Amino acid sequence: MSSIKKIGILTGGGDCPGLNPVIRAATRTAILKYGLEVVGIRNGYRGLYLGDFTPLTLENISGILPLGGTILHSSNKDNLFQYPFEENGETVLKDVSHVGVENLKKAGIDAMLIVGGDGTLTSGRDFSNLGVRVIGVPKTIDNDLASTDVTFGFDTAVSVATEALDRLHTTASSHHRIMVLEVMGRYAGWIGLNAGIAGGADAIMIPEIPYDINKIANAINTRKKFGKTFSVIVASEGAKSVNGEMVVSKVVENSPDPIRLGGIGAKVADELEQLCGLEARATTLGHIQRGGTPTAYDRILSTRYGSYAVDLAMEGKFGNMVTLKGNEMSYDSLNNVIGQKTKNVNPNGELVRFAKNIGISFGD
Amino acid sequence: MSSIKKIGILTGGGDCPGLNPVIRAATRTAILKYGLEVVGIRNGYRGLYLGDFTPLTLENISGILPLGGTILHSSNKDNLFQYPFEENGETVLKDVSHVGVENLKKAGIDAMLIVGGDGTLTSGRDFSNLGVRVIGVPKTIDNDLASTDVTFGFDTAVSVATEALDRLHTTASSHHRIMVLEVMGRYAGWIGLNAGIAGGADAIMIPEIPYDINKIANAINTRKKFGKTFSVIVASEGAKSVNGEMVVSKVVENSPDPIRLGGIGAKVADELEQLCGLEARATTLGHIQRGGTPTAYDRILSTRYGSYAVDLAMEGKFGNMVTLKGNEMSYDSLNNVIGQKTKNVNPNGELVRFAKNIGISFGD
Amino acid sequence: MSSIKKIGILTGGGDCPGLNPVIRAATRTAILKYGLEVVGIRNGYRGLYLGDFTPLTLENISGILPLGGTILHSSNKDNLFQYPFEENGETVLKDVSHVGVENLKKAGIDAMLIVGGDGTLTSGRDFSNLGVRVIGVPKTIDNDLASTDVTFGFDTAVSVATEALDRLHTTASSHHRIMVLEVMGRYAGWIGLNAGIAGGADAIMIPEIPYDINKIANAINTRKKFGKTFSVIVASEGAKSVNGEMVVSKVVENSPDPIRLGGIGAKVADELEQLCGLEARATTLGHIQRGGTPTAYDRILSTRYGSYAVDLAMEGKFGNMVTLKGNEMSYDSLNNVIGQKTKNVNPNGELVRFAKNIGISFGD
Amino acid sequence: MSSIKKIGILTGGGDCPGLNPVIRAATRTAILKYGLEVVGIRNGYRGLYLGDFTPLTLENISGILPLGGTILHSSNKDNLFQYPFEENGETVLKDVSHVGVENLKKAGIDAMLIVGGDGTLTSGRDFSNLGVRVIGVPKTIDNDLASTDVTFGFDTAVSVATEALDRLHTTASSHHRIMVLEVMGRYAGWIGLNAGIAGGADAIMIPEIPYDINKIANAINTRKKFGKTFSVIVASEGAKSVNGEMVVSKVVENSPDPIRLGGIGAKVADELEQLCGLEARATTLGHIQRGGTPTAYDRILSTRYGSYAVDLAMEGKFGNMVTLKGNEMSYDSLNNVIGQKTKNVNPNGELVRFAKNIGISFGD
Repeated sequence: MSSIKKIGILTGGGDCPGLNPVIRAATRTAILKYGLEVVGIRNGYRGLYLGDFTPLTLENISGILPLGGTILHSSNKDNLFQYPFEENGETVLKDVSHVGVENLKKAGIDAMLIVGGDGTLTSGRDFSNLGVRVIGVPKTIDNDLASTDVTFGFDTAVSVATEALDRLHTTASSHHRIMVLEVMGRYAGWIGLNAGIAGGADAIMIPEIPYDINKIANAINTRKKFGKTFSVIVASEGAKSVNGEMVVSKVVENSPDPIRLGGIGAKVADELEQLCGLEARATTLGHIQRGGTPTAYDRILSTRYGSYAVDLAMEGKFGNMVTLKGNEMSYDSLNNVIGQKTKNVNPNGELVRFAKNIGISFGD
Repeated sequence: MSSIKKIGILTGGGDCPGLNPVIRAATRTAILKYGLEVVGIRNGYRGLYLGDFTPLTLENISGILPLGGTILHSSNKDNLFQYPFEENGETVLKDVSHVGVENLKKAGIDAMLIVGGDGTLTSGRDFSNLGVRVIGVPKTIDNDLASTDVTFGFDTAVSVATEALDRLHTTASSHHRIMVLEVMGRYAGWIGLNAGIAGGADAIMIPEIPYDINKIANAINTRKKFGKTFSVIVASEGAKSVNGEMVVSKVVENSPDPIRLGGIGAKVADELEQLCGLEARATTLGHIQRGGTPTAYDRILSTRYGSYAVDLAMEGKFGNMVTLKGNEMSYDSLNNVIGQKTKNVNPNGELVRFAKNIGISFGD
Repeated sequence: MSSIKKIGILTGGGDCPGLNPVIRAATRTAILKYGLEVVGIRNGYRGLYLGDFTPLTLENISGILPLGGTILHSSNKDNLFQYPFEENGETVLKDVSHVGVENLKKAGIDAMLIVGGDGTLTSGRDFSNLGVRVIGVPKTIDNDLASTDVTFGFDTAVSVATEALDRLHTTASSHHRIMVLEVMGRYAGWIGLNAGIAGGADAIMIPEIPYDINKIANAINTRKKFGKTFSVIVASEGAKSVNGEMVVSKVVENSPDPIRLGGIGAKVADELEQLCGLEARATTLGHIQRGGTPTAYDRILSTRYGSYAVDLAMEGKFGNMVTLKGNEMSYDSLNNVIGQKTKNVNPNGELVRFAKNIGISFGD
Repeated sequence: MSSIKKIGILTGGGDCPGLNPVIRAATRTAILKYGLEVVGIRNGYRGLYLGDFTPLTLENISGILPLGGTILHSSNKDNLFQYPFEENGETVLKDVSHVGVENLKKAGIDAMLIVGGDGTLTSGRDFSNLGVRVIGVPKTIDNDLASTDVTFGFDTAVSVATEALDRLHTTASSHHRIMVLEVMGRYAGWIGLNAGIAGGADAIMIPEIPYDINKIANAINTRKKFGKTFSVIVASEGAKSVNGEMVVSKVVENSPDPIRLGGIGAKVADELEQLCGLEARATTLGHIQRGGTPTAYDRILSTRYGSYAVDLAMEGKFGNMVTLKGNEMSYDSLNNVIGQKTKNVNPNGELVRFAKNIGISFGD
């Protein structure tokens, strides 16, 4: 593949600690190991469409290792195969992927690293099928990708949630309260499960294990017998009750003020307050989980993803996504990984078992 | 005051980092400097009523310096002068302060340190007026007490909010978003003002300076001219618009689900999204601000408060509250300090001026 | 194994974040899942010899999850098979293991969890061979155990070292200096390698890759060409030069003052200062790496180790040590794992390759 | 002072958290409030001599608030009034201050903010006396400047040292050890005193209170009676024994290896090990104390210093240094503040008294 002289890097989708280390590792590997030129594509696919490219050099990536976010910026739900245009007051979706392909050619970009989640990588696959030389790098803070064992950003999210639980513990204990922390995880409960164990939660509610609020209440009431008049609860935003309800925070459209309703955390707190006769309070961590400096673990993992992506490109392994299998980097075809089912917590798996071993209730 | 042989310590009101260092410093000073016995009164005034006392020793206070919360636990809105009893299904308020006085006598407690906010200290004054030897220690995370310059817990709250702002910055920047952080401060904007400066906020909304949302929006739009397509906003929970509205998160009583509505942060985010044409998101920090390990600054400050309170007791200066004046500990009569007006941010003061100097908008 | 009614837990050897979560998880699993009694053996084998046992209950292990150290305390180099006694002014080693066995019997302890490093587990195996029912839990901050993939405490050590590197970076950059951080790792370079990658080091010196100081100096000088007049270096305490020297900090016995000499970090700083014409400073992290609150990662990992150890005991799998293989808990015979060679960094392995990819020099 | 159109900013001396916030606040105030141009003078006085100037804009100071170090870089012991030149193999000191003055004129810089310690500000005063319009901003991590109450960087140093003490505590306790932490403070014990209180030290040794090692040992031995078989000690690098010795880490010039000897921490550990019969270990925090992200407190304080310096310049108050008096910013003549005695800890002052109240030994 000696024909590769210049590579582009694009980041798409939501914020995730580790994006800058990926950019840094890929750029340094490309320049220092392979003598390539590197180009940053700004604002995700929008920048690809607009030709908004910027050179990445050893100098301008200096100091980004500990920074959250992405110096290339990102955009949500960009898709050049279905790009939204306003026409006569309506939104029309057109395929302008050829503009992106043309821009890459004009800029002399021989291969493109695409760092993103399911949506971003789906377009990556489609560009690959158009003949663009693409290497995908998976990005999901939820760690719910079936094709790779661990994704960067996840350890940081769990750490931030754990630190919040440490802080809530002292309030819970001092005031004999139930404190509910709502964490990210609409479809998979990895953050909730891990933060719950690390933060010493008494109950964890995740999408994979429908909860019976009465059983959660029982667990709290049992603690009272041991003199523990407080409890700390973790609820994934996508947790479902056994009745199938799922409460997601949402905007009430036609209210006088455009108000937002509380999510699962608030609902659970209200219910437990009534069932247990203890004051209950909910906190929603929100975006704090996905911003800020990555943990050491995530910096190393994202460095591996970024550096390996360039190695793969130089080996000509296009159309693939970098993966982590056990302790080793590997890769898999974008055609395979796109559309795979979410990697869910196994309700009968080891981690849930250990959590139950130590007395954590899942409400099941 | 050589008649003091045994002192009691009581903590009341909301959680606040520094309570345990106060307990530790008071206990160590009492035992090591004065050879006293020390008794912890558990769960605030409720414990005083119930005689729920526990000895405090060098051993059982060991290791509590870095811990948030209070090992003595607390209770909100306890008041033995108006203690709530259930009678025939109704709540009746009775004065049972004599039971508390009696319990102190029975336990041989010669003087009582009362650590708490306005409510707790009001009862402290009332006990003092009944002849109980009381030293007050002020506790307010909001730093809004007129009689003392700085209160412990405040530096920790500002630090936690600042760290959250650091994290939100990277998301805001990566996604060209407006991120709104709602922080504590229903009546005074100290946390919002300080965290906003420390966290590099572009606009700060505090109760003392009614904001015009259009002026906030203008500030954000002006930033766009400098190429800054994101903004980070801090809103105190008690911030008010120039129209006098104040949005406080509350429970909608008769809704099908007992839902909670978002507060000022959510409202501001929604308005700015429309006015600025940028995505906006709100995060409410909530209880995370008042739990967890105190900063070094707060550990030192609370140690001074706790140790000085015992010195004061041994000097027989009862009926007073410990204060910080400039860099020195001092004291003031509980009769004076109770009912004083909230110490508010001065809209024309130095800190607001510096904030405006560096371009922070207050919407005024 | 319904004959197990009471288990003992013993921690031995050096401090390591995660010991308390192991104790907590094992105790909770034993009580809540299996209805056992749990006994803590204090101060390692010394406590076994002295019969210094203490009941572990849900109450007295409460709150220890985020604490560093071990509530059971520990002792270094205790070995009941070669226990040191003073006789006539000389130290005589005697086998008093039978006293330990006897004490277990007297206390009715049916099985013993032994948490420790190589030395502690060697005695564990020996007790197992005497018929004591033993489950081993590996503990090494250096992550250099061949029989298990990752050990708890390691992630915390890497995180602490990474945070130190973040701080040193700003001084290095502001002052055009070389900053050398000496980290733990006498025989294996895992902490140095991982912290170096996570902390953005320019060179890493580890025991497994003998370094030529001139090559390190060259790497620093090459950076100057890119306008980088500073460098940050990580040196494992056991790093060796190509000449075979190894500099370990040590006490000069007969000096007027009992002084300690600096280790590899100080030596490397002095050499690089001369070779590169830049000021160089060394910092030795020391014990800070092994104390304090465990990271979320380590809390989860140690919880798994502790809970699984009790599961194994109840399955009657005595004489084994808990291990982590890939993402799953497993176990291996103590007879196998004792005396295995140190798990070293592979100089041709993936992680070193990625480190070199991004331009980190190992001086080879 | 409408004649001010362009100001320069220069940072000199050692690293100190808060320098970047000073630069940021001064630049923003100058541009946004006064419409000035701002120029950064790189590498301290060296840059003034070389004319190494760079424009400071809203854009290139963006994101520096949380960064340690100084984006303008610094140099130690630069002094244009005694600038070192090599002539015939010898170092000759010449006065080249006129070159600096000339460079300011050529660049059209009307006034200069000089941020630095005693040495840097002495030159600042000398430039002021030459007619250069100078505003000084004090910088000392040791907080030992008589003319101002608190300096930025100090709170961060205390916080870092406190966190280290938290980590050392668990090792000390688990292993029944004495852990000695050596912190900065050659002439003044502020960091040691404050970190010692915040970190729960059992003894503190500072330059202002000569210690008797036997009294420190007694304090440790007394703890044993309360069942505390460990102790944590803080020693300022400039602590002196009652015999007048002071042990400073230094390089042994003519040794075979250019080795560094340990400082006061190592010496104290060795002595206490012998006197107390407990293992003792020393850790020297070193540069970690002065690098890295500033605390919220220091970000606010340095923002005030930087913004007020520009206000002062616009009021024509040249030849002055910004100070903090109580809770308000103020200023004092550089002629007054230069050469003032170090602000030392008062051995009979309030903070030492509270430390002794809670049982901390100073060895006096």
